Parts: sequence; C-alpha cells; structure tokens
Amino acid sequence: MAMLVNGRPGDAVSVLDRGFAYGDGVFRTLQLRHGRPWMWRWQYARLCDDAARLRLEAPDEGLLLDELLALGREHALAVGKIVLTRGAGARGYAMSAAGAPTRVVSAAPWAGYPAEYGERGVVARWCELRLSVQPALAGIKHLNRLESVLARSEWSDPAIQEGLLLDQDGWLVEGAMSNIYLLRGSQILTPRLDRCGVNGAVRDWLTENVSNFGLEFIESRLSVGDLIDAEAAFLSNSLMGIWPLARLGERVWMPSPLLQSLRQALLQQA
Amino acid sequence: MAMLVNGRPGDAVSVLDRGFAYGDGVFRTLQLRHGRPWMWRWQYARLCDDAARLRLEAPDEGLLLDELLALGREHALAVGKIVLTRGAGARGYAMSAAGAPTRVVSAAPWAGYPAEYGERGVVARWCELRLSVQPALAGIKHLNRLESVLARSEWSDPAIQEGLLLDQDGWLVEGAMSNIYLLRGSQILTPRLDRCGVNGAVRDWLTENVSNFGLEFIESRLSVGDLIDAEAAFLSNSLMGIWPLARLGERVWMPSPLLQSLRQALLQQA
Repeated sequence: MAMLVNGRPGDAVSVLDRGFAYGDGVFRTLQLRHGRPWMWRWQYARLCDDAARLRLEAPDEGLLLDELLALGREHALAVGKIVLTRGAGARGYAMSAAGAPTRVVSAAPWAGYPAEYGERGVVARWCELRLSVQPALAGIKHLNRLESVLARSEWSDPAIQEGLLLDQDGWLVEGAMSNIYLLRGSQILTPRLDRCGVNGAVRDWLTENVSNFGLEFIESRLSVGDLIDAEAAFLSNSLMGIWPLARLGERVWMPSPLLQSLRQALLQQA
Repeated sequence: MAMLVNGRPGDAVSVLDRGFAYGDGVFRTLQLRHGRPWMWRWQYARLCDDAARLRLEAPDEGLLLDELLALGREHALAVGKIVLTRGAGARGYAMSAAGAPTRVVSAAPWAGYPAEYGERGVVARWCELRLSVQPALAGIKHLNRLESVLARSEWSDPAIQEGLLLDQDGWLVEGAMSNIYLLRGSQILTPRLDRCGVNGAVRDWLTENVSNFGLEFIESRLSVGDLIDAEAAFLSNSLMGIWPLARLGERVWMPSPLLQSLRQALLQQA
C-alpha cells in the first residue's frame, strides 16, 4: 500500500495524534481508477461537510486529487482512503490543545467485489447491536467506528455480505458498511440520518439522480416491517456501488430491472 | 514526553493501526510518582475488564509496570498513559483482519493541578451535548472519544474546571473527564454506567472504601434535581483524585468535612 502523510511518503502517525488518541477526525474510502477517484464530486463535498461538522478544515481539492493520482495511477483499480484528523496535541480533550491537522492519503490495489453481488444481489442478516443515537455526530464518517467494528464481528459466514443495523429505538438505519434503501411504488425510501448512521457519497448521488428514473427520493423513519414489505431493497457505498438485497433471513427479493437500471447509471458516473 | 511502542522507544504508530482507523482500543491515564502508578491495582483491573469487553488481551501486568517505571522514574510526578489497540490490520471492520495488538506506554512530567481544586472545590457547568446510549460500550474507557471532545469544546473559560453531561434521556452521567457523586445522608450516589459513561479507577476504589466512612455506595439513575438537592457533590478521576463541587450555576455547596476525609484517604492510597 502506498501512503502519504501530510504529503510525504510514510506509513506512520504520531502517538499523540488525536486521530489515534480520540478518533478525532473524519475519513473517506474511495474507488480509484488509474488514480482517479470515482464519484469525486460527491466524495469531496461529503468530506468538506463532515470536516466542518467537527470544526476541521478540509484539505484543498487539487492537493487531494494530486496525491490520489500519484499513489493510484499504476493500478487499474485501487481502494483509496483519505483520513483527516485534528493533528497531534497536548493532553486533554480540548480542541485548542491541537496543532496542525493530519492528512493521510493511501491507495491499495484492489480486485473489486464479485460481479454477481451487484448483478444478482447479496445476502444480509440482522445485527444484534443497536446503534446509539447522537445527533451531534449523526451522518458523519468520523473515526469513532467501534459500533461498526462490533457489528461486523457478529458474523463470519462468507455467504453473508452485510449486516443490517437498527438504532436503540428499533428504527432501521444502515448496513455495517453501507446505506440502505427500499423501493415502494415510485418511491426510494431511505432512513433519515439525523440521529445516527453514516451518510455515504452514493447516497448523495441518489438524492440527485433517482428522479431521472421517475423515482422520488424520500428520507424517513423506516421500520423492520417497511423493509420486509418493500418491493425491492438495496445497499450502497463507494466500493460496492449498488448491491440489490437478494435475501434477508426468510425474505427473498426477486431481481428488479429498475434497480439494475439505477445501478448501471451509477456505474457510468464519472 | 517519553514513549514506548510495543516496548521499543518510538513516538509513532502505523497508519493502518485500528486505533487510528477506528478508535478500536482502550486506554488508561495514570498518575506516576517516580514511575510508580498510583491506584495501580484498580487501574490494571479496569484495563483488563475494558480490554476483555472489546475482546482484546491485556498486556502482562509486570511488563506494564516495568515500562511505566522506565519512562517515569526520573519525575516526582508524571502523567502516564497506556493505550492498547487491536493493532494494524487489513481494510475492513472485521476483527479477524487485525494483526498483533499495539501497546503504547508514555509518561510526561506534570506539575499537578492547583491544590485548591481538591481543598476548596471546583466550578462546573452543564454541557449541551447529550451522551448517546450504547450498552455495548458503556463504562469502557475506549478510544472513541468524540463525545468527550465535543463536550470539552463547549467552554474555554479557565474559571470552569469541568462540564457535566446528561444522556439522551436527561439522566446525569458524568463530567467530561470525571465521574460524579452525590452525598445524601449516609449515601454516596453515583450514576449507573450501564448505558453510557466511563468507569474510572477511583470510582472502583470508592465502591470498596466508602463503607470505612460509614457511607453506603449506591449506583442509580440520577436526575439534575438529585444533584441540585444533594448535600454535597464531588468529581473523581485518576489525576484529580477527588474534587468537591463548589459551584454549578446558581448552586453553591459549602465545604464538606466528610468529603475532605474521603479525599485524604484516597490520597493516602498506594
């Protein structure tokens, strides 16, 4: 894996970095095609939004693009990652104790997921962990990811591609590594991320683009029953793109031509 | 500051360390007196408990004591810190992607807090942030500390020593860097930490020792009203020891000889 720490080749950060000490930072995971980040417009916008929520200054866009290109250009496909933290600081939680921010950019060659996940759909399960409710952090892809770690630790069966999460009150939120959507008539419904969950770049793309398919994008409180009753359901993140849900426990969904059209449109996106 | 990373002098960890990527680890902050950690019995027990909750193996006790001594022996007083993470790993939240754990031990000379904080008490304020409810992580001193960072960012007035936190349902939990206790007759009441909050080593010491003062230790759901109505209130952590609460907004508490006796007993503890 190739890496740049504040622009310099390196694979280490200070023990005093607040990313290490407190998870005080944000990150993005991206698909790099010959070093060019897929969905960049949405990724960068999200990075800026998330950073601002934590009162961090986002790095310059051109700088990030240059670094990703330098690290990923030799690979047809790679997983890129941008981590931004509040930097190394004195002891204590106060933000004023922090120095200059830390920027870590990395790229690792990647074979991609099996094509059938996108074409035929995936199998999901319910996680027992319930996500905590924290409006001050909801939606942000921050570095406090212990809930994701605990959720992902609930299964090891490779035939299960994703675990679905409810919040403490039992509302549907997301997958351990993805956003989730339901198809109901001409509506795409997805959980509102005002109390917990991570807002992905593909989710933002969908808000702007589903109308091209005669669909309406609706953020809502959704229940387990809403998901089970949905005509179709799917997951998204920046590595998988769109994966239809094929099975969740007893519930089996038939392939949806509409979802495949949406998925193909996403894949065509620069 | 002197540091050991997995026993070797160094001040850096891998960018791939899950402590940096996900906050996937635990830590303790300790008071070192010529390199000897104060309250070690309670500190080590808590480290082991917290590590086990996250399915991490705690380092050997003798090893940690040796490292703390090596780093802190030259200082009459120092702040020691032990960080334990799931180590560097492949991409993805799954614990199975992790390699060997990372252990970071550090010590920094310290002047101590002003004596008057312990003797005359401190001033606290209410934080607007409400702590999220997550039983799977409650009580653990883990590396996902963004809530603490946000809470501590709410004030910069140096005349205020601590911010107090309620949970999403309005129950009293803790201070941004401390546990909190109320005195009511012969009872010491403290918030139950089964839904959020961090269980400190001094808190454990109190559970074992308040009976020596004719007091009963009770964990309970406590409200803002319970705190305001308390005859006395105090904070604890391993650096402050015990700080009486002198003022919280309009509420002023008179000095409590009983709290001072308790505080002195704690200070005598090895």
